[in-house]
Amino acid sequence: MTNSLETLKIRLLEHQDITKVKVRFNDTDAMGIVHFKNYMVYFDDGFVSFMNSLEGKQPVEQFIHQGLALGVKHVDITYEKPATFGDYILVKTNIDKIGNKSLTFYHELSRESDGEIVAIVKATRFVMDLKTNKLRNVMSFFKNFIQ
Amino acid sequence: MTNSLETLKIRLLEHQDITKVKVRFNDTDAMGIVHFKNYMVYFDDGFVSFMNSLEGKQPVEQFIHQGLALGVKHVDITYEKPATFGDYILVKTNIDKIGNKSLTFYHELSRESDGEIVAIVKATRFVMDLKTNKLRNVMSFFKNFIQ
Amino acid sequence: MTNSLETLKIRLLEHQDITKVKVRFNDTDAMGIVHFKNYMVYFDDGFVSFMNSLEGKQPVEQFIHQGLALGVKHVDITYEKPATFGDYILVKTNIDKIGNKSLTFYHELSRESDGEIVAIVKATRFVMDLKTNKLRNVMSFFKNFIQ
Amino acid sequence: MTNSLETLKIRLLEHQDITKVKVRFNDTDAMGIVHFKNYMVYFDDGFVSFMNSLEGKQPVEQFIHQGLALGVKHVDITYEKPATFGDYILVKTNIDKIGNKSLTFYHELSRESDGEIVAIVKATRFVMDLKTNKLRNVMSFFKNFIQ
Repeated sequence: MTNSLETLKIRLLEHQDITKVKVRFNDTDAMGIVHFKNYMVYFDDGFVSFMNSLEGKQPVEQFIHQGLALGVKHVDITYEKPATFGDYILVKTNIDKIGNKSLTFYHELSRESDGEIVAIVKATRFVMDLKTNKLRNVMSFFKNFIQ
Repeated sequence: MTNSLETLKIRLLEHQDITKVKVRFNDTDAMGIVHFKNYMVYFDDGFVSFMNSLEGKQPVEQFIHQGLALGVKHVDITYEKPATFGDYILVKTNIDKIGNKSLTFYHELSRESDGEIVAIVKATRFVMDLKTNKLRNVMSFFKNFIQ
Repeated sequence: MTNSLETLKIRLLEHQDITKVKVRFNDTDAMGIVHFKNYMVYFDDGFVSFMNSLEGKQPVEQFIHQGLALGVKHVDITYEKPATFGDYILVKTNIDKIGNKSLTFYHELSRESDGEIVAIVKATRFVMDLKTNKLRNVMSFFKNFIQ
Repeated sequence: MTNSLETLKIRLLEHQDITKVKVRFNDTDAMGIVHFKNYMVYFDDGFVSFMNSLEGKQPVEQFIHQGLALGVKHVDITYEKPATFGDYILVKTNIDKIGNKSLTFYHELSRESDGEIVAIVKATRFVMDLKTNKLRNVMSFFKNFIQ
């Protein structure tokens, strides 16, 4: 039964990953802090790191070269404290919800230096076959990816 | 009474602006479409255009040079159809809600060629004095900006 | 003779284009000025505008969708005066040199407000078939594109 | 004599640093490879890493918060092989030349996987006091930074 979709789903929902991102000078804007658009790059790093921490059959970076896109459908981001040049941002990632055709990631971004929350993100993604433009079932994708 | 805050508030809530953005090649990613982070640049153009269409005392671009930041607190963005290199994106902007210390903009991004909705955005912003790091009252800011 | 490659080459070398780019807030960095990497976006706009001002058979944006890449081989950029949020940048573009497998564009970026030079760019590009990864002859490409 | 400027200059010119950058999905463009502008981000990482590997009195990231800018005056970049999503780029950095008011860095970017050169960069930088807009003498800056 360890191979069943239900077990895999539980494993996915319990999994957590933390990765670290360094703020670059060109991530900042004339306010002296990171521009609001650039936090999307940070939590995208969290997504890639989360996926690879599952230790699937291949790095998640390979899918795009195979015609499979892990696209973004919806982002909800709340900005708390600003980050500045030289900061290290910890991105804590887990899956919040798994649906048939989409799944929602939860990312918490915090400053490594003082633990202050920088941003909270919910990002809903889907798996799409770039040849047919059809959405894949999420759990089938993970079954294929991991087992 | 035309100068009253209430009248101004109604004017602001009724105001609408449309601006056009051209998709650059470097806005795209290896999926061949605009990367999800870059739509934030497009609706930010909508914000700037909306503010300047109010015909205030100065371009909104000047505030940052005066130590006043129009920061972003929250973004909710839903991606509908993708945009590609060469597309023109129409950004339709209005104010959805005005609170004491924040206001929420509504942006609708559509492809000029076929009218298809590309993304829907709600972005909550605040006005902050960069010297004191204190938030300004939204309507006082607009009264000062416009009248 | 108007159709000959030599005539076309002369026409290309004499052609000049000017386009205007608005500096976005997220183009700036914590120094309060446009980050040095973002000038590459501005002269790339100059390239696209130059190509389309030739009034070829199709917009230059279409080539990528047809598997033809106008790649960049070399960039030499000198930064003169900084640009800031709200500035309009004029990008003046012409072709400096046409070789067999590459051509070099010259871009002059200046501030619209006071005419000050912001940056001077020489960018060498090539035309590559993305299916075969082979370089195309430059003049054959233009002959095809324009005539 | 170990503290003399001449000794310090020799030490600087002999110093070398290597840092590693991971290619992000949003660094790529619709050609499936890293967009030419984004290599500027990579060698800028090389610059920051080089400076911090000198083990000065403070991280180089602090200078901007103290009103000192390490600006870019000139960039000469040659693109060799493309990088793609998931690649690790090694950025090898040393100082090519030290003048009075500027210095030139040499960066070699290569793919970690196969050692192929991705890009070669010469970037000339200056040290500017943001309050007076005056350039600092390069060796005085380093003396202050390191000793």
